[in-house]
Amino acid sequence: MEKLVSLCKRRGFLFQSSEIYGGINGFWDYGPLGVELKRNVKEAWWRDMVTGHDDLSTMPGAPEPYEMTGLDCTIIMHPQVWKCSGHYDLFHDYMVDCRQSKRRYRHDQVVGRWVEAKGQIVFATAGSDSDHPEADIERNALKFFGLRTKQADQLKWDGVMVSLTTVDDFSQVLGPDAKELGTLTEPREYNLMFKTIVGALGGEENAAFLRPETAQGIFVNFKNVVDSSRVRVPFGIAQIGKSFRNEITPRNFTFRSREFEQMEIEFFCHPNSSAEWYTYWRNRRFQWYIDMGLAGDKLRLREHDPDELSHYSTGTADVEYAFPFLPAGEYGELEGIAHRGDFDLRSHMEGKLDPESNPLTLELDENGKPRHRGSGKDLTYRDDITNERYTPHVIEPSAGADRATLAFLCEAYTEDEAPDENGKMQSRVVMKLHPRIAPLKAAVFPLVKKDGMPEMAQDIYRSLKKKFNVFYDEKGAVGRRYRRQDEAGTPFCITVDGESISDGTVTIRHRDTLEQWRVKKDDVVAEIDKLVNG
Amino acid sequence: MEKLVSLCKRRGFLFQSSEIYGGINGFWDYGPLGVELKRNVKEAWWRDMVTGHDDLSTMPGAPEPYEMTGLDCTIIMHPQVWKCSGHYDLFHDYMVDCRQSKRRYRHDQVVGRWVEAKGQIVFATAGSDSDHPEADIERNALKFFGLRTKQADQLKWDGVMVSLTTVDDFSQVLGPDAKELGTLTEPREYNLMFKTIVGALGGEENAAFLRPETAQGIFVNFKNVVDSSRVRVPFGIAQIGKSFRNEITPRNFTFRSREFEQMEIEFFCHPNSSAEWYTYWRNRRFQWYIDMGLAGDKLRLREHDPDELSHYSTGTADVEYAFPFLPAGEYGELEGIAHRGDFDLRSHMEGKLDPESNPLTLELDENGKPRHRGSGKDLTYRDDITNERYTPHVIEPSAGADRATLAFLCEAYTEDEAPDENGKMQSRVVMKLHPRIAPLKAAVFPLVKKDGMPEMAQDIYRSLKKKFNVFYDEKGAVGRRYRRQDEAGTPFCITVDGESISDGTVTIRHRDTLEQWRVKKDDVVAEIDKLVNG
Repeated sequence: MEKLVSLCKRRGFLFQSSEIYGGINGFWDYGPLGVELKRNVKEAWWRDMVTGHDDLSTMPGAPEPYEMTGLDCTIIMHPQVWKCSGHYDLFHDYMVDCRQSKRRYRHDQVVGRWVEAKGQIVFATAGSDSDHPEADIERNALKFFGLRTKQADQLKWDGVMVSLTTVDDFSQVLGPDAKELGTLTEPREYNLMFKTIVGALGGEENAAFLRPETAQGIFVNFKNVVDSSRVRVPFGIAQIGKSFRNEITPRNFTFRSREFEQMEIEFFCHPNSSAEWYTYWRNRRFQWYIDMGLAGDKLRLREHDPDELSHYSTGTADVEYAFPFLPAGEYGELEGIAHRGDFDLRSHMEGKLDPESNPLTLELDENGKPRHRGSGKDLTYRDDITNERYTPHVIEPSAGADRATLAFLCEAYTEDEAPDENGKMQSRVVMKLHPRIAPLKAAVFPLVKKDGMPEMAQDIYRSLKKKFNVFYDEKGAVGRRYRRQDEAGTPFCITVDGESISDGTVTIRHRDTLEQWRVKKDDVVAEIDKLVNG
Repeated sequence: MEKLVSLCKRRGFLFQSSEIYGGINGFWDYGPLGVELKRNVKEAWWRDMVTGHDDLSTMPGAPEPYEMTGLDCTIIMHPQVWKCSGHYDLFHDYMVDCRQSKRRYRHDQVVGRWVEAKGQIVFATAGSDSDHPEADIERNALKFFGLRTKQADQLKWDGVMVSLTTVDDFSQVLGPDAKELGTLTEPREYNLMFKTIVGALGGEENAAFLRPETAQGIFVNFKNVVDSSRVRVPFGIAQIGKSFRNEITPRNFTFRSREFEQMEIEFFCHPNSSAEWYTYWRNRRFQWYIDMGLAGDKLRLREHDPDELSHYSTGTADVEYAFPFLPAGEYGELEGIAHRGDFDLRSHMEGKLDPESNPLTLELDENGKPRHRGSGKDLTYRDDITNERYTPHVIEPSAGADRATLAFLCEAYTEDEAPDENGKMQSRVVMKLHPRIAPLKAAVFPLVKKDGMPEMAQDIYRSLKKKFNVFYDEKGAVGRRYRRQDEAGTPFCITVDGESISDGTVTIRHRDTLEQWRVKKDDVVAEIDKLVNG
């Protein structure tokens, strides 16, 4: 992972935001190669899900044909959106503060073990930012009991490492950075939405929030989309855009950032077929990552256990990837596909909310009435053929553009060997990115800077440039030029050599197989088009 | 303009954000057609400026070939970025409050006239949200002096309407919504950046800002880009992304929004050639709007007068468009092209700041030293051929993606006549969008739903769909289907009729000329490709 992070900075995939000012935790910038990579990831998703979707054909596994349409909503919305969605009241983490170290921790991310020594039992802990929690807990416990490392056998461990959330009595807890017991406060709520003030007047009544997800913008526009584009249920609305979460412990490169980009679909369907649609979307979205180059054991589809599900969901699955920064056997979420029932549309309607079935979204007033009602707008749907009116069910495939990009980078990073100019094998670093998402589709080299080679190479470069993002390089040994493109993930290198001048053919080199073959120079554009777009 | 706003909502180009909750002032969502339109605008810009740029050729009017590269930075950056850029201290409007009406106005947007009646002279005003300031001022003055409308000739007007900024003594001012004199407060600063708090701790020391421009992300990454991509000066860095300004009076549809998207280039060049590069970029960017379909008197390039220029700029020009919501003869800014010298890079370096030459960015401490120094990083550039080290000059073409999109919509809106099925002329509304940015490139219709026409039309639809965003419609009279596509701005409609079944040709109808011609069905994709991409 360190090698990948270093390559990302060195080759301009990713930079820490505001690096010259010491950086800002949880924010990452995409450099010249990174911006093209991420653009391609988003474009592939949009094309595969929206503009390229054939609404006349039944997709494999789908109950019937369906339409797809797009939307682009603002990051700042009316604050009532978040009250009705439940984010205002419920989108928070629990935090504990340490009175001694003055540090703050996520309640569920403090882990520890019950330890006994010298007749006393304590719960010794380590924080979520620890790379070796077991070792930290042991060191902490030894210090507390006044023991040396070699006296570790005097510690009696009870069971496995568990989260602080399993502990009721904090007076027995030894905080991650504390020297005494009981320095942690009770857990307190901490809302993850970034707050700001809109308008010139200031004051809490003008507070607004940066969206923590793009989904709600789709729900509140459901009626506008139905009315303006004449789509019929079943149909999906897709959106790509930035979201913000004030994570307490951003970490793992771009995996958990405070500012990130989502690619979300809300798919509206009839309640009777929503279970089938859930299965369809779960499988379709899993397949998408395979098609884009993630494969093997590192990618998996994990169906949530019934006790993991939200109260309104009858099914949720995560597409997960075994990121190299995670402990062996652990996976990180790339995308969640959730059957959300009619929860979201109902939450944004008025008077349809039932405290019994939707207890989580409702803060009750002194009369027991829900304080946050919906918009008062009718968000039901009338089928113009059957005349049936109903609240559609929603299937939500919610993907992270940055996480997908990071997974593609991790999967692509390869160290192998390639022959140098003299045919001798040398180690190389190669980013085996799928041609669709590779920042540069091809690079064009004249073998040497003479004999008309640069002119021919430049002609090829210009004709490719009309369709693809390509690169021209005439500097240094051709072997070094290949290596640079290997690191950039460029799938094809085109070289103009002496033979090119005499017979008009050039070589194309395949990044992964290192295979080289010759094509006529006038066929290069068609050949690259075939190789990249299939 | 009202017709355009109404069409934008009805056909799904633009919706008011959070409309079901009463909307939020200054925020707009793009609907199904709008999101494709804006995506195409941004894609055209990126392709023309970045990925399609030929760095080996000298562009017409440019001093020499140059490279272009991209970047994608976060919206929230380290707060020091804004202190060093000057935005923290200087990016504000002056506001006046009315003690009587409790309303707040932008100081420079309150306009008024000196009025004399009954021996007293007052400065009567109207606010910036007034559609008829002259009439409002007169009504206000009449009320103040206790006169009726028919006694208006008793008012003596002094000169033309001027801004409140010309008035020193507010005791003589009659506020826009006030009944007495002197109710306006002195002007007060109001920073236009949205503020939020990053991290779990809260408190002012963790304040951060939503970027008010994308440009600074480029400057602070200048060194990263030079080091990682081996670009050589002259080169440009382009970025597309959201910016936020807490405008006091958002207005004019999407023209002045609080959340908007920018398309900015920072072009780095040698100081000796920066004047030439400024001229090149000014002309190139102006031409881009012409190429995208803005034409005639409504588009103009306006060079700033010397007294309009920032102290560091030796030249700034605006590309302006005569939006229909502006008074006759007035233009709104689409893009500013500014020669910024070395101001920005110097502002982000340490110790290079000179209070004499850069007075605006520097807040001095009690010892007269600049309080906000740069990053301490060396942002100069060393030319590896001449070995010269210098701070590059910057040319900044800064465009608004939403404003460009709005201008294209305004320019496209046309009312003319087209024949119906019976050849009778009927009025129609047609959006004459350039094919490159039109949301849908083509629509495919079977003339009737029988005789194999739908099947052939669907085949054509599917083959087009692989390359273009296209639409299939078999519902209702074909004339109505044409009209719907005219409103959506779809440049070409393809109809399968009886002749198609017998001879395999289909008609293509041109949206603007209404010309129809027949092509073989297997040639449709190539024909549309030629028509759209040239």
